[in-house]
Amino acid sequence: MEIVDLRSDTITRPTEAMRKAMAEAEVGDDVFKEDPTVNRLEEMAAQRMGKPAALLVSSGTMGNLVSQLAHCGRGSETLLGDQSHVFFYEQGGASALGGIHPRTLANAEDGTIALDVIEAAIRPDDVHFPRSRLIILENTHNRCNGVPLTPAYTRSVGQLAARHGLKLHIDGARIFNAAVALGVNAAELAGPADSVTFCLSKGLAAPVGSVVCGDEDFIAEARRARKSVGGGMRQAGIIAAAGIVALTEMVDRLAEDHANARALAIGLAQTPGLQIDPERVTTNIVYFRVVQEGMDAPSLVARLADRGVLVLPTAPDRMRAVLNYHVTADDVDRALAVFRKTMGT
Amino acid sequence: MEIVDLRSDTITRPTEAMRKAMAEAEVGDDVFKEDPTVNRLEEMAAQRMGKPAALLVSSGTMGNLVSQLAHCGRGSETLLGDQSHVFFYEQGGASALGGIHPRTLANAEDGTIALDVIEAAIRPDDVHFPRSRLIILENTHNRCNGVPLTPAYTRSVGQLAARHGLKLHIDGARIFNAAVALGVNAAELAGPADSVTFCLSKGLAAPVGSVVCGDEDFIAEARRARKSVGGGMRQAGIIAAAGIVALTEMVDRLAEDHANARALAIGLAQTPGLQIDPERVTTNIVYFRVVQEGMDAPSLVARLADRGVLVLPTAPDRMRAVLNYHVTADDVDRALAVFRKTMGT
Amino acid sequence: MEIVDLRSDTITRPTEAMRKAMAEAEVGDDVFKEDPTVNRLEEMAAQRMGKPAALLVSSGTMGNLVSQLAHCGRGSETLLGDQSHVFFYEQGGASALGGIHPRTLANAEDGTIALDVIEAAIRPDDVHFPRSRLIILENTHNRCNGVPLTPAYTRSVGQLAARHGLKLHIDGARIFNAAVALGVNAAELAGPADSVTFCLSKGLAAPVGSVVCGDEDFIAEARRARKSVGGGMRQAGIIAAAGIVALTEMVDRLAEDHANARALAIGLAQTPGLQIDPERVTTNIVYFRVVQEGMDAPSLVARLADRGVLVLPTAPDRMRAVLNYHVTADDVDRALAVFRKTMGT
Amino acid sequence: MEIVDLRSDTITRPTEAMRKAMAEAEVGDDVFKEDPTVNRLEEMAAQRMGKPAALLVSSGTMGNLVSQLAHCGRGSETLLGDQSHVFFYEQGGASALGGIHPRTLANAEDGTIALDVIEAAIRPDDVHFPRSRLIILENTHNRCNGVPLTPAYTRSVGQLAARHGLKLHIDGARIFNAAVALGVNAAELAGPADSVTFCLSKGLAAPVGSVVCGDEDFIAEARRARKSVGGGMRQAGIIAAAGIVALTEMVDRLAEDHANARALAIGLAQTPGLQIDPERVTTNIVYFRVVQEGMDAPSLVARLADRGVLVLPTAPDRMRAVLNYHVTADDVDRALAVFRKTMGT
Repeated sequence: MEIVDLRSDTITRPTEAMRKAMAEAEVGDDVFKEDPTVNRLEEMAAQRMGKPAALLVSSGTMGNLVSQLAHCGRGSETLLGDQSHVFFYEQGGASALGGIHPRTLANAEDGTIALDVIEAAIRPDDVHFPRSRLIILENTHNRCNGVPLTPAYTRSVGQLAARHGLKLHIDGARIFNAAVALGVNAAELAGPADSVTFCLSKGLAAPVGSVVCGDEDFIAEARRARKSVGGGMRQAGIIAAAGIVALTEMVDRLAEDHANARALAIGLAQTPGLQIDPERVTTNIVYFRVVQEGMDAPSLVARLADRGVLVLPTAPDRMRAVLNYHVTADDVDRALAVFRKTMGT
Repeated sequence: MEIVDLRSDTITRPTEAMRKAMAEAEVGDDVFKEDPTVNRLEEMAAQRMGKPAALLVSSGTMGNLVSQLAHCGRGSETLLGDQSHVFFYEQGGASALGGIHPRTLANAEDGTIALDVIEAAIRPDDVHFPRSRLIILENTHNRCNGVPLTPAYTRSVGQLAARHGLKLHIDGARIFNAAVALGVNAAELAGPADSVTFCLSKGLAAPVGSVVCGDEDFIAEARRARKSVGGGMRQAGIIAAAGIVALTEMVDRLAEDHANARALAIGLAQTPGLQIDPERVTTNIVYFRVVQEGMDAPSLVARLADRGVLVLPTAPDRMRAVLNYHVTADDVDRALAVFRKTMGT
Repeated sequence: MEIVDLRSDTITRPTEAMRKAMAEAEVGDDVFKEDPTVNRLEEMAAQRMGKPAALLVSSGTMGNLVSQLAHCGRGSETLLGDQSHVFFYEQGGASALGGIHPRTLANAEDGTIALDVIEAAIRPDDVHFPRSRLIILENTHNRCNGVPLTPAYTRSVGQLAARHGLKLHIDGARIFNAAVALGVNAAELAGPADSVTFCLSKGLAAPVGSVVCGDEDFIAEARRARKSVGGGMRQAGIIAAAGIVALTEMVDRLAEDHANARALAIGLAQTPGLQIDPERVTTNIVYFRVVQEGMDAPSLVARLADRGVLVLPTAPDRMRAVLNYHVTADDVDRALAVFRKTMGT
Repeated sequence: MEIVDLRSDTITRPTEAMRKAMAEAEVGDDVFKEDPTVNRLEEMAAQRMGKPAALLVSSGTMGNLVSQLAHCGRGSETLLGDQSHVFFYEQGGASALGGIHPRTLANAEDGTIALDVIEAAIRPDDVHFPRSRLIILENTHNRCNGVPLTPAYTRSVGQLAARHGLKLHIDGARIFNAAVALGVNAAELAGPADSVTFCLSKGLAAPVGSVVCGDEDFIAEARRARKSVGGGMRQAGIIAAAGIVALTEMVDRLAEDHANARALAIGLAQTPGLQIDPERVTTNIVYFRVVQEGMDAPSLVARLADRGVLVLPTAPDRMRAVLNYHVTADDVDRALAVFRKTMGT
């Protein structure tokens, strides 16, 4: 049985070009900043994000963590979405390890946080309060149907942040999905932010790695933070080599994932017992609900798995499918057939 | 000009009986557990809360902090109201100092958090998530009009916590206000909780001090936590002596503050340009809004102060008045006259 | 049986003048900075230490903790003596709560740390290292026979700190003992430091309280740190009132404790089976060893206690006696008689 | 000019066999525990260390950090050498991020800490003290001339730890150098420990990666800690593939590095102006001093670099050379010639 793995785009395996690049990568000791391939990737990444400097890290979580550690001291407060990956899925590391206090604000369905809500949450200078320090946005916004945030919204938040002396960080794990979906450069999306993290793994299919971008001082602090968490890697050029391929060859094809996602969503909307608004699917992430009597997400997920289609349950009645490099349009058709069969139609 | 100070019940000064008790207190070194007056207060407090043990601390914030430090390890997650004092007004200390991750849940107007909302927020065992560990309730709930939580609600939360292996802490800074307002024993309100903090200062008028209550093991950990924050005091019997008077003589009279609060609320409701539902005022805290064109909370607060009535602005259009030991029914009348005059009626 | 309690000077009970001052203290809400007695004490303390500002805290441990939190960010490194109270007896709170990395350096017998040892321990700027930030001295140095550090030594360390951009904090829990023993003003001892903590309890006999002194910015940060640990007290004027008496009336009499300590030390040196160099006893702390076959510190301490003399064991063969306000020259004679009897002579 | 790079064994570049293995590695998503190559490496590593389980991490620093986080709660105290890598070169991360209090004890020249010194440093149960929790040894001990700790010493420490309810962690970054030098299995060296970290990079020449080994419960906690610092990598099989080659093919050849190190040490001992005892060089690390008038370590290092020999200055008069996979016996001869020339002989 051939598997259609829709659990996440993190499952993507490196391409042949990446394997070749890794095998042939020129490497050095990156802790001494002597790995030429890492240096090349960091320059390329910085340039793509329109920032002066960049730092390779081993995961999106590490990128968000070292960014928070670099921006925030003990007792600083971050303002972030109540549906954000940083709040939800990163084990509360910024608090646990960094003594940073998260203040969650309601994410609208489009992944934004209302500007007046952000503004009202900024703390005055008072001993009763932590110090507001950092706003965090997520683009695309995973738990909000993978929706991209627009340049205009991001700019507004950047202006708000600047007005109040706050910093803005973008968790751009899938920022290239946003750029492709919106037809803009990633740099336009990252421009208003003081820092941005994006992932080479996930949709871009590199095996390991994310990059943090920002100005020189920020990156110097992030580098220290990376060292403190043990994220300094030696001949990291191996990883960087695949990352360079990811940045060079894999960005444009994200449009295929988006098209496949839309096709899947339309098919799911037509499947009895499932609920989804296909209009909300604009990148590669497809959330849908099971509304059939006597069926819940875990049981449906298990039955689909028996037939070779893997999706992730994310709530008692909710599941997630993520289109990715290994899933073709044909796979989507096959998956939809399995869905229909499983839903008894 | 005689001042009517309604900013907070924290402004209460010790009674003559307290001053006498402090002057005559038998004391010892409490770090050696040899202060007889502290020991007596702790026994009395434990008994009032129906708990096996107690610990004198120097503030409600310290009580809540050491309770969280005692219940929670690095990276534990607390579930608490988004309007709670612990989240709002304690500088994020549990995160900043203890590496504890707060998960805020919506407080209803009655100070509760819906049971299903709490239950849905409990994290499964997964490396992506912090570990849910502690539910925190606040009784009375300051930012929710000082509303008392009922024994029934508290019991339900206690059962929910136990079912999921979580602990329940009550920030009972004003738990005696709740007890008096509901006509129950404080022990009934504290019963379902693993720990409770209450304040001897605030409505009970002691100059300094709060008490944490719980079982022996918890109190032993809280004592360690108190020492680590430097909260171990030597001849603390001086403070405890006033606390004993507070517990003995000052609880029942809270009913007067509640009556005065209701009277104030009714008067404010009748004052043009102000907005308040007097039915919501059930203890000693009175929140109200200014809705008059061209007036906001800070400017109104300043004008009232010029006429000797002190209240606290808590939002651009919102203020708080807290009835307390030093404010009589006559003072309320006087304050209302000032309000009316200031609102131009 | 009359007890001679030599365990610590922390056991001192307030004087009649203190009790009277507490009973009559004018108080206000110190979190609003409205307690006139606290304000007066803080001014007086600042002036005594020759610093612009001061902050009342509830213990020496809290004073040292908030000073470290104010000077040091997450991941800063402190340089402090391996025999220091901060390292030994404060539960590692600066690390546990503040993420501050302690680097212990050898204390000489005179309580100093060699200047070249300090200088060699300062870290270069490198991602492998924490950032050296704060030197901590202790004056008098408890575990080094209560020895006072001289103004000259302290100045040298202050210059070294300034040269390297570090801060200097003095744990001056017993700085007035040092001042009296050396015949200098406390301000001269505190002068080279950026911050100093001293205790109103201990030798000065106030029931509760220590004061942190430094410049305005530092004190503002220390005030925030105090709030975060829950050390903000409301009508703290009660405590401050006793502190004012302590500062005013109790400093000069420390000379009596020093004389009694020397007398005790001489007597102990003449007692068979005990070992002490009386020349090392220059303030109020007396460390001595038991060197008699078949006897160790815990057993000797127990036998002394049976005869009404209380001392603290601090190592298998070492004990500490601390002279204090409640111990007269006659008490020393009585204690020595008990020592001789207990040692079988 | 051909460079002889003796700065560190971290500069080693992957072998051809490793490059091939990486290019062909079968991979999956390791956060789902589905990477077969990672799973194989972890099994192999666990078996080599004689432990039930293992976890791939991205660096030795991360291995030591997650081990400390897994063993220690907030406010735990570690006992470790004052010359240890964990204390010296890991940015104080365990304190900064984990709230763990380090207690440094004197390392003897042979890298050990005297057993009675360890035992005396274990804290009694008292609110003044942090809780002693973890002993950390380092094998081989980098700053102590790369000396290996013997199985007998390690066993003694393990027994001491067990007797006091403490855990023992070994920073075995170069434990295979120790095993080869002593002619024992690494498992014998790791046996007495509750956890051990070793590096695939460094002498074994893998580009990236270290492995933490211990029992199942410990590894589960370490895995959580790894996730919290962002050390979870996706298709980490790429890295693991090189690690498998490192473990399989690169251990025995460490003997060559040791022989080369000894040869270098002997040559340096015969070079005027340099000081070293070649007998102390038993693995691949060579520390030596410059004792020539008018020359210090930084200036000597610079002159050597001009002639193509790279070593690291570690103190004003001290340098380190580390033999490694890329340095042959001939390179050692060439380097010695450069040393002689540079020292003017």
